[in-house]
Amino acid sequence: MRLAIKLEWNGGPYMGYQRQGHGPSVQQAVEEAIESVIGEAVVVNAAGRTDTGVHALGMRAHFDLSRSFDPFRMMEAVNARLRLAEHPIAVLDCIEAPEDWHARFSCTGRAYEYRIINRRAPLTVELGKAWRIAKPLDEVAMHEAAQLLVGHHDFTTFRSVHCQSASPIKTLDRLDVRREGDRVFIEAAARSFLHHQVRSMVGCLALVGQGMWSVAQVGEALAAKDRGKLGLNAPSEGLYFVRATYPGE
Amino acid sequence: MRLAIKLEWNGGPYMGYQRQGHGPSVQQAVEEAIESVIGEAVVVNAAGRTDTGVHALGMRAHFDLSRSFDPFRMMEAVNARLRLAEHPIAVLDCIEAPEDWHARFSCTGRAYEYRIINRRAPLTVELGKAWRIAKPLDEVAMHEAAQLLVGHHDFTTFRSVHCQSASPIKTLDRLDVRREGDRVFIEAAARSFLHHQVRSMVGCLALVGQGMWSVAQVGEALAAKDRGKLGLNAPSEGLYFVRATYPGE
Repeated sequence: MRLAIKLEWNGGPYMGYQRQGHGPSVQQAVEEAIESVIGEAVVVNAAGRTDTGVHALGMRAHFDLSRSFDPFRMMEAVNARLRLAEHPIAVLDCIEAPEDWHARFSCTGRAYEYRIINRRAPLTVELGKAWRIAKPLDEVAMHEAAQLLVGHHDFTTFRSVHCQSASPIKTLDRLDVRREGDRVFIEAAARSFLHHQVRSMVGCLALVGQGMWSVAQVGEALAAKDRGKLGLNAPSEGLYFVRATYPGE
Repeated sequence: MRLAIKLEWNGGPYMGYQRQGHGPSVQQAVEEAIESVIGEAVVVNAAGRTDTGVHALGMRAHFDLSRSFDPFRMMEAVNARLRLAEHPIAVLDCIEAPEDWHARFSCTGRAYEYRIINRRAPLTVELGKAWRIAKPLDEVAMHEAAQLLVGHHDFTTFRSVHCQSASPIKTLDRLDVRREGDRVFIEAAARSFLHHQVRSMVGCLALVGQGMWSVAQVGEALAAKDRGKLGLNAPSEGLYFVRATYPGE
């Protein structure tokens, strides 16, 4: 039996989604919670890996059981275990999935949101949940620059040296910048992303917003296909994996 | 010279705004930060006291200096000190105020927001920042019940036994309940509130929302003028002091 879950987590305490030899991971916490419920080892495959400190509001994942188990009871029991272990991770949804449904390989769309708080004062209530930028941001210029990145491109400039993707060529479907008061939100959508791609793009847009880069420089950085041309990698605490989409949804 | 500041804080680590003999307070943290900047003792008076664990997004306060000091430099220096001491408290604004302007006594309006997240899954990213209620809430019934509390009433039912107010009679100007997805927000505005009044009102509205109380029971609880008729005190982690208003603003 295959179960499909939707996960939310505060990325602060974790080295990212994937199991790591050298630190806590969301995957390990979720797998241990499930194992304590059903008494058998499981592997929980997620749509994306996410970096150290990155949050998730709607990560999709799946795992297989050797016997039948009610999905709602599973969600409740796993949440109870996660809460007991004080993990800031929750299962928002749990349903039975077809045997050929794979959270990672069936996924056809991924969406991230990046949250900036544009003010002088340090963060308090939202500490660790957004990137504070003191200098006033020109979100219109940021959105204009973002449009230069949308489309089918070689994103080598915006790719981590640790990226395991076979190719640096990706299609960025959407990169929107909008302001709500002192909040600036950046939404990114694509079939898939390179390692550090969203944070690298946001970092460059933040330079544009502060007037340290022109809009054209973002286009030049993209065209250079050179990691050395990257302006800045935005901190992980502002990044949220918001959505994974699948055919037929 | 009198300086007027606007404060934001995460209430989690504090016993409330006011200095306490038995635990950390926002007042103490702010006073110590100012004292380390100017080298003299100050008392920082705020518009409201707030309970243990209650957050603030826009608390107003003032303090007096024996000599002139640039307000912007004060804000920056105090924020740097608070950050260094890892206090989740920030000064959002600092201006010179007239000698007769008093953050507490000149204040003619106070507004709170209460944040509920209405879902089964435990909180992760917003842990400690909202009240999670698993049972589906009827926000329309909650808003209807809230209107029974608006106006000039004896709020004894919704008053803590520790309340120091001279009279239990207050005028509640506004108590609005609205839903945005799985979020239910309750906004309360009045010239002043009794100790625990907002949390006590929210607790009863939550009972209405869950169908455990009828709308009429809220009116009956108010009319009883009896603390024993209180349904429930909502937890402090969902409460935010959002605004203090002054004549001429």
